[in-house]
Amino acid sequence: MAKELKELTNREENYSQWYNDLVVKAGLAETSAVRGCMVIKPYGYAIWEKMHEVLDKMFKETGHVNAYFPLFIPKSFFSKEAHHVEGFAKECAVVTHYRLKNDPDGKGVVVDPEARLEEELIVRPTSETIIWNTYKNWIQSYRDLPILCNQWANVVRWEMRTRLFLRTAEFLWQEGHTAHATREEAMEEARRMIRVYADFVEKWMAVPVIIGHKSDSERFAGAEDTLTIEALMQDGKALQSGTSHFLGQNFAKAFDVQFANREGALEYVWATSWGVSTRLMGALIMAHSDNNGLVLPPKLAPIQVVLIPIYKGDEELEAIVSRLDEMAAELKAKGISVKVDARDNVRSGFKFAEYELKGVPVRLVIGPRDFKNGTVEIARRDTLTKEVVPQEGIADRVAGLLEDIQRNIYDKAVKFREEMTTKVDTYDEFKRVLDEKGGFILAHWDGTPETEEKIKEETKATIRCIPVDAPEEDGVDLISGKPSKRRVIFARSY
Amino acid sequence: MAKELKELTNREENYSQWYNDLVVKAGLAETSAVRGCMVIKPYGYAIWEKMHEVLDKMFKETGHVNAYFPLFIPKSFFSKEAHHVEGFAKECAVVTHYRLKNDPDGKGVVVDPEARLEEELIVRPTSETIIWNTYKNWIQSYRDLPILCNQWANVVRWEMRTRLFLRTAEFLWQEGHTAHATREEAMEEARRMIRVYADFVEKWMAVPVIIGHKSDSERFAGAEDTLTIEALMQDGKALQSGTSHFLGQNFAKAFDVQFANREGALEYVWATSWGVSTRLMGALIMAHSDNNGLVLPPKLAPIQVVLIPIYKGDEELEAIVSRLDEMAAELKAKGISVKVDARDNVRSGFKFAEYELKGVPVRLVIGPRDFKNGTVEIARRDTLTKEVVPQEGIADRVAGLLEDIQRNIYDKAVKFREEMTTKVDTYDEFKRVLDEKGGFILAHWDGTPETEEKIKEETKATIRCIPVDAPEEDGVDLISGKPSKRRVIFARSY
Repeated sequence: MAKELKELTNREENYSQWYNDLVVKAGLAETSAVRGCMVIKPYGYAIWEKMHEVLDKMFKETGHVNAYFPLFIPKSFFSKEAHHVEGFAKECAVVTHYRLKNDPDGKGVVVDPEARLEEELIVRPTSETIIWNTYKNWIQSYRDLPILCNQWANVVRWEMRTRLFLRTAEFLWQEGHTAHATREEAMEEARRMIRVYADFVEKWMAVPVIIGHKSDSERFAGAEDTLTIEALMQDGKALQSGTSHFLGQNFAKAFDVQFANREGALEYVWATSWGVSTRLMGALIMAHSDNNGLVLPPKLAPIQVVLIPIYKGDEELEAIVSRLDEMAAELKAKGISVKVDARDNVRSGFKFAEYELKGVPVRLVIGPRDFKNGTVEIARRDTLTKEVVPQEGIADRVAGLLEDIQRNIYDKAVKFREEMTTKVDTYDEFKRVLDEKGGFILAHWDGTPETEEKIKEETKATIRCIPVDAPEEDGVDLISGKPSKRRVIFARSY
Repeated sequence: MAKELKELTNREENYSQWYNDLVVKAGLAETSAVRGCMVIKPYGYAIWEKMHEVLDKMFKETGHVNAYFPLFIPKSFFSKEAHHVEGFAKECAVVTHYRLKNDPDGKGVVVDPEARLEEELIVRPTSETIIWNTYKNWIQSYRDLPILCNQWANVVRWEMRTRLFLRTAEFLWQEGHTAHATREEAMEEARRMIRVYADFVEKWMAVPVIIGHKSDSERFAGAEDTLTIEALMQDGKALQSGTSHFLGQNFAKAFDVQFANREGALEYVWATSWGVSTRLMGALIMAHSDNNGLVLPPKLAPIQVVLIPIYKGDEELEAIVSRLDEMAAELKAKGISVKVDARDNVRSGFKFAEYELKGVPVRLVIGPRDFKNGTVEIARRDTLTKEVVPQEGIADRVAGLLEDIQRNIYDKAVKFREEMTTKVDTYDEFKRVLDEKGGFILAHWDGTPETEEKIKEETKATIRCIPVDAPEEDGVDLISGKPSKRRVIFARSY
């Protein structure tokens, strides 16, 4: 591991390689034998599990229930909603057969040509179609509404260029799909859920986000409005971290889902959908980590505190580990997750490097002198600083420190974003800032797809969002010179 | 719902239709637009979620961690383990293409013939192959062992005849895959996990099971030993509820996974795999339910107590509901999950029937007289009995009652199984008992596949298991007359 750590690419030299090294070497995920599909390793999965647990609780507190819908979607369903098919039905895994058989030539197995499906099935890239086809049977009257369902599932989008967590052919996510009697209620739901996402990402992942609307061209296929949370990574690129869509009556019309209102008249149902995915893992890793490895926010760290002995000989090891075990018990009693690493086949320096790489927020070390003095060395991962403190009262001290670290890495990320957010008023300035500094660029936009497209083509920057709280301000579009009422956020992005 | 309840098929008339009605009408699951794939509805999913939560905790307490492996498996992987391909590679969903395109004739979308995969991908029917291909990179030395991984996932087996929960093309499950340095350690792991399953099914689902070994012909494809837990349903048929396999070195050899032992010599790794699935939902439903609907064990019931007002007029409704809300708060404080049903658009009789159908273990009702007298009517779902008791101390009473119900439905299932277990010593008796009574039949078997096959062909009964605790007893095989040392369990099964 110490050797591996040395091999971690320097972040400033090659950010992209640094990211990939980090994901692999910290044991979060790795590529698999299947192109574009990743293996999420136990340490990475433990973080995702924690995210899942917290988000699931937040969904339930806002009145949602979980359900499960089929992995496969009949091909014809994708043609039903015109915009949806344009946006989604391109790069999908297509199931055409349902049986293998022994190769007549004796070389393993082959697809049985006689077992061809009448209609091909698509592995879900998202589930609006199959779910609205199901809701049709669940909804007759206004009394059946709202339906507030969420699903935790795997989905597949056949991406050509993949990166662990950020863009993989298969990924894990949750997708909420709700049905409402009125436009206003559905819009309120879409807003509620983007706020839940923002809360989660800020309070648990310690990553500040900006809530805003997507422009028409960046909107989800089939939505009337897409709300997004946009986070800034340390290389100055934006990462879309979650979206919540107001779908209008598009899917209800495509799948003929009507309800009888209080007056008995039939109306089409209003819809939302919203999702976050294992992509959040990418955001978590990229927002905080450094050249020593991961920096995990304490609230999501699988191991919050690691305890390591420094010793000579078995007798000293035993005595110190016994003291560490006592401290570990005190910490656990406070709900803190701990690991005592008493391995005697690796040096303590190796252990230090390993847990730094893995982003464990706090390290406690007892050596012979500490053992004698009743002290302990306490080191924090975020600042890489350490001090020697009394063993007495360590649990309270660590609990406080974990809160400090959570706050500190959030504050640091906010400060970074502030420094990396630039107002520009000319296209030349725009291009210069984008190339020399990166980050979020606040600029006026006339609201037309023409300007947006030209900027995207020439600079690869896109409109990340029109912030919901953007103040009114008179200005002119960078390209067209036409009037604009507020600034939007441009950035290059993942 | 009261109307729907009337339409619940009588269990004694048509068990199979009763089961299907129950699953659909109680809101557990339904069929979908995709052949053989089900939709797990919120009420059913809430039970599965609880099972997931409890099992996951048990797995972690026995030292396991979760991870996630790809949905797709390259076709060639299935040919690597000879027995595995025989048992599994037949009925699978096969992905052959990765892109759709707009139909040139303008009729929706078609599969793009140019986007054909070089090697077809199989939607995982189980993950031994992809996981052992991954473990190859994780294991070098004895220090890397054991690996104790579990995965919660969806899997697909293209079943021709499907039944909700019991046999569906797609189902949810967990699959543990462990790697060990010695045969004995792997065998102990396989035994440990079948005991975990037995514990869960008996203590949480209130379904008694018999732990035993599968015969050679019923063993998992690629296993050297398959341990099973077998439960008895109310129609006298057996349901295999979970399996744990000792895989020997078969997958290690197929994927060339070796480790350096303490002496530095290379050895193949020993393996186990073990799984339970949404099939457990079928067992839960069929083991306890009756002609009024589901009977859920309190420990897995999404709603443990429903509180219903009986009233005339808004004022009385408000007063009684306010009292019910107080009681609900008392119950919640004890960790009991409750629902107050204050709907004013359905009769209380309708509500009673609805919650009986949904198997809610305890119902509390306050009417005007109870309100005045400080009493409450308490009804239990398992026995359909009720009594009027003081409101005071209701939380303790309900907590005790929930324990009683859990115990009672388990005891009832044990008693049923005892009555339905028959020792037979001749083939004529075997056939008579099977046709007239069903259940578990304890009979001698000479250990040959010939006897087993003949009985299966002629009676559709199979050897469910060779119980691990079967006492030694001299006897003779029903068919061959050859000597046998212990009885095995035969039954017709799901």
